[in-house]
Amino acid sequence: MNSFGRLFRVNIYGESHGAGVGVVIDGCPPGIPLELVDFETDLARRRSGKPGTTARLETDRPQLLSGVFEGKTTGAPIAIWFLNQQQQTADYVSNRWIFRPGHADFTAYSKYKGYNDWRGGGMFSGRLTVGLVAAGVIAKKIIQPMQIDAIIEEIGGQKNYDEGVTEAQRAGDTLGGIITCTVENVPVGLGEPFFDSVESLLSHAIFAIPGIKGVAFGSGFAAARMHGSEYNDRFLDGSGKTATNHAGGINGGITNGNPLFFQVAVRPTASIAQPQPTFDFEQRRPTLLQINGRHDVCFALRVPVIIEAMTACVLADLLLIKKAFD
Amino acid sequence: MNSFGRLFRVNIYGESHGAGVGVVIDGCPPGIPLELVDFETDLARRRSGKPGTTARLETDRPQLLSGVFEGKTTGAPIAIWFLNQQQQTADYVSNRWIFRPGHADFTAYSKYKGYNDWRGGGMFSGRLTVGLVAAGVIAKKIIQPMQIDAIIEEIGGQKNYDEGVTEAQRAGDTLGGIITCTVENVPVGLGEPFFDSVESLLSHAIFAIPGIKGVAFGSGFAAARMHGSEYNDRFLDGSGKTATNHAGGINGGITNGNPLFFQVAVRPTASIAQPQPTFDFEQRRPTLLQINGRHDVCFALRVPVIIEAMTACVLADLLLIKKAFD
Amino acid sequence: MNSFGRLFRVNIYGESHGAGVGVVIDGCPPGIPLELVDFETDLARRRSGKPGTTARLETDRPQLLSGVFEGKTTGAPIAIWFLNQQQQTADYVSNRWIFRPGHADFTAYSKYKGYNDWRGGGMFSGRLTVGLVAAGVIAKKIIQPMQIDAIIEEIGGQKNYDEGVTEAQRAGDTLGGIITCTVENVPVGLGEPFFDSVESLLSHAIFAIPGIKGVAFGSGFAAARMHGSEYNDRFLDGSGKTATNHAGGINGGITNGNPLFFQVAVRPTASIAQPQPTFDFEQRRPTLLQINGRHDVCFALRVPVIIEAMTACVLADLLLIKKAFD
Amino acid sequence: MNSFGRLFRVNIYGESHGAGVGVVIDGCPPGIPLELVDFETDLARRRSGKPGTTARLETDRPQLLSGVFEGKTTGAPIAIWFLNQQQQTADYVSNRWIFRPGHADFTAYSKYKGYNDWRGGGMFSGRLTVGLVAAGVIAKKIIQPMQIDAIIEEIGGQKNYDEGVTEAQRAGDTLGGIITCTVENVPVGLGEPFFDSVESLLSHAIFAIPGIKGVAFGSGFAAARMHGSEYNDRFLDGSGKTATNHAGGINGGITNGNPLFFQVAVRPTASIAQPQPTFDFEQRRPTLLQINGRHDVCFALRVPVIIEAMTACVLADLLLIKKAFD
Repeated sequence: MNSFGRLFRVNIYGESHGAGVGVVIDGCPPGIPLELVDFETDLARRRSGKPGTTARLETDRPQLLSGVFEGKTTGAPIAIWFLNQQQQTADYVSNRWIFRPGHADFTAYSKYKGYNDWRGGGMFSGRLTVGLVAAGVIAKKIIQPMQIDAIIEEIGGQKNYDEGVTEAQRAGDTLGGIITCTVENVPVGLGEPFFDSVESLLSHAIFAIPGIKGVAFGSGFAAARMHGSEYNDRFLDGSGKTATNHAGGINGGITNGNPLFFQVAVRPTASIAQPQPTFDFEQRRPTLLQINGRHDVCFALRVPVIIEAMTACVLADLLLIKKAFD
Repeated sequence: MNSFGRLFRVNIYGESHGAGVGVVIDGCPPGIPLELVDFETDLARRRSGKPGTTARLETDRPQLLSGVFEGKTTGAPIAIWFLNQQQQTADYVSNRWIFRPGHADFTAYSKYKGYNDWRGGGMFSGRLTVGLVAAGVIAKKIIQPMQIDAIIEEIGGQKNYDEGVTEAQRAGDTLGGIITCTVENVPVGLGEPFFDSVESLLSHAIFAIPGIKGVAFGSGFAAARMHGSEYNDRFLDGSGKTATNHAGGINGGITNGNPLFFQVAVRPTASIAQPQPTFDFEQRRPTLLQINGRHDVCFALRVPVIIEAMTACVLADLLLIKKAFD
Repeated sequence: MNSFGRLFRVNIYGESHGAGVGVVIDGCPPGIPLELVDFETDLARRRSGKPGTTARLETDRPQLLSGVFEGKTTGAPIAIWFLNQQQQTADYVSNRWIFRPGHADFTAYSKYKGYNDWRGGGMFSGRLTVGLVAAGVIAKKIIQPMQIDAIIEEIGGQKNYDEGVTEAQRAGDTLGGIITCTVENVPVGLGEPFFDSVESLLSHAIFAIPGIKGVAFGSGFAAARMHGSEYNDRFLDGSGKTATNHAGGINGGITNGNPLFFQVAVRPTASIAQPQPTFDFEQRRPTLLQINGRHDVCFALRVPVIIEAMTACVLADLLLIKKAFD
Repeated sequence: MNSFGRLFRVNIYGESHGAGVGVVIDGCPPGIPLELVDFETDLARRRSGKPGTTARLETDRPQLLSGVFEGKTTGAPIAIWFLNQQQQTADYVSNRWIFRPGHADFTAYSKYKGYNDWRGGGMFSGRLTVGLVAAGVIAKKIIQPMQIDAIIEEIGGQKNYDEGVTEAQRAGDTLGGIITCTVENVPVGLGEPFFDSVESLLSHAIFAIPGIKGVAFGSGFAAARMHGSEYNDRFLDGSGKTATNHAGGINGGITNGNPLFFQVAVRPTASIAQPQPTFDFEQRRPTLLQINGRHDVCFALRVPVIIEAMTACVLADLLLIKKAFD
């Protein structure tokens, strides 16, 4: 299913080299001011063009197809459409049969029995995340005064990563990275025990972003090496404020009023400029693949705003659910 | 919501010190042989009694309330009930108001406005995972010949951890650990791009287990420090078999036929024997808390079988969905 | 799926002649007073023993397995269990292969490949509705001051139906009936346009009751023969109060503040005492079936409280959702 | 929520006088041939222009935005967009405050706090059903060889209704009608007991169509006046074929292999040309309303193809689910 959320619900569709990509947001409360200009900052953060990201420059102009009237949300589904403009399908002809390592070419072909739109990764393209970012813009308005900030912690293992990016680019290689995300002003009581824990829902949404391979809350994997006496966050007062935040703001799956904090691991970009040995699934024989086209040396650089968007969508959903039971 | 899954659906309920805990499994195909004895091995793996785990010895005898007839599943919902037997509520009286650090006492109290069953953590207790394990037993039958194995990678940072457990116990402290999980014989094509990616669904289910703070697939956080030329898994042949498995058996959210592999971080047990400074939410003043009762030094030791169960439930759901579209 | 609802969610399980039947209610707000005695009136209304209903006298004693603590709901799932006590399976041995006309014997056998629990209809038995009634008791508390009243409009086509019931019983035959349901004090704004219209959700839930074959809102089928000038409900004032209520309290799928009103058609009881020609699916030949066992001459007599329960569950769900967006 | 279905899932959005209306179909199997021309027949059946239907002549040209590649479905979500072309908003200015009797103006205003797009009914317009019809075209392909036929049984109480329509039009009045729907070649075993009964799911989807006020299966409301000895459908042979079909092809919520049959009541068109007393919600006083604009004398004439579409969507979903468990 290409949708997520219980009350605030996000649906995405579209392909990299088709007509465009879209998102339908269901369950947005009425009366929220919303204009095209509101999308600009976050779309620009996701967009290509910076060092280390692909040269494909979609203008990413959202079209509001429904759900907004006289500058405010109506309560009806909000449909947003992004026309594709710079498709250079010729760049991708080879990957119809010569499946790119690290990509979804093989799994998509197998799952959809060869009927998938293989051009540029089709439905699997990072291009689809433009809709997620747009949904996030709306969600961020709903969750105010919660404030989400995702930042790059390291790229290719380095905190000062500009040099590493340049070097990788020169080598025809690619890098991954680690993003951290913090949410301030989180109310106590979002989430549920077990299946709808904040960790469950956030990880579900974050792992929906292509290329994410790890999600860890609070001290995360380091927590596994702590003693309980060190890990337990001590209450400072009756507000639930704690001296430390090893739990990342979540106890028993429920927000405890301290900042949410989690880390996200992004794998290196799959499309490398170096020739790679692979398999030709048409000729059924090994071959050497030279990927052309425009690709990020490190798409992790564009991921923070997408993580913020997914986080905002989950929190908007949980906030509405909390209101239902208050 | 205390349920998970689209076609194969698991619902849990119950409390640590109430009448018992239960699970209802909806969407199990008919005709699967199922007897009480089938639950024994996995329930024993989860059960307490081993060094480093609590002395509370529930017999964990499942009662099959519905959905099984003449030794086979009927296609109707399977309800399984576990009577609580060894509740010692007196041990927990203090945590009505003196909220235990690292526990859900504060969040549960806040979210449920003080109406939550606070005895032994109530709904938040690890006791609820007995139902998950039971669901897993059924799911494992459905997904054959897929074979799931979760093992302890390290406890308290150590691969040979017996000594560390003994030491922590002596110190009145607790430990966490890291579990790895591998699934063999996975068909190509389980999962979807984006919201129903295998990573999204597995992490959703795994983070539903109390105390899990990190989930990472394939090379996980280490992938963030690799180059693409190293990370990309090279195809060996037309079956999709790859020379390495940095992706953990998943591309584009979809299984690629290689083994699924992921790591799970478990935080240290929250209940430590050492006195801890905390806050008395009734008297509204700082206080010192001495936790009594029976607790695991390291509940991570019991987690592998629960991870297997959650993994089996997700895979059973995805396998049924795959069949729908084949 | 044996569950229904988005926030207030009802799950049922069990079989007529198995261990018992149960219901799990997820999404009940905390702090609602709930005792066993609260279930008595509605369970008694559903229960057998009145003229025209079966002689099987289950005591229908609910056991509260979870979700209630110190006499109030906790916010955790509420599990309620009803032990079966008066099973006389011997009465049903014949229907393993000689499928009863009007029953689900054939469809259950076919769908579940012969693995279904066929005793007394198994999962398909009206016995399962005891759980629905229990869920309704809780839902009715949530939706106060909304007030639901379902009454028998006619049985066997007659408003004074005692005589007809006696006559049918004497003839070894059975009757159906029409129930009407009215809800007073309904707030404006429950429901959504299209898929979550009040009509969609109510009919979904009502048709889940075995034996229901028609649901019509307001003037229902009679509306199809009216002119618009007659049908349109004229507003009396700014509260939305209308002079007539042909729409049954719903416009555009959303409650308009006038009473909800709908009619429900219940087919005659399938089990008749007269011998019936049918087919022996084991011997593969026509045969004559004589149904024994205890059966209602007219189970429609017991249906009003079940309709109230389903209506209450839908309204509880919609009320919680409305709160989320207010 | 503006979506419906478990595996085959339909999402709609858009407004009568906004940019257009759209539908996203999730869960369509790959490899199904699909071209624009496939939509023509059913869209034409829904379209206006015939006697008794509105003069607004949208060309209803679907644009396939995603999910189709080289003439076949890909397995990715299929997004279809219909641009609005003939909006004459001026016709609707009055209904911003002078709420039309029988319409959703009042409920929409109340529910969405005045932020709803009120032009032409906005989201509540019958215009949205164009997306449902488009989804139905795809669903009909999936369910082959099942064959759905919805026909007009009567309009304004008459089987020969042309005269009645002309008369109503002359009187500035409107009519409703009754539609019957039959599905042939239905496999045994679609649907579930209780909440996912075929009756529950079909009625849910059918009541999502604006203006539907009654749904009845098989003998429907007439069944309530039959004796069991008359109503019970006698098996003719081991295939489950019955001599009569009072049950409408469904036993215990599950298809029995006989044709599905149900009746649908459509209320008269709400917009009548006659002046109507109503309430001015801005001035807070009674007023007389004269509705202009283009309206159907009897929109029931256009409903059959929409009923077929909703039926096809439900059956496609149930067929996929059945495959999952076969």
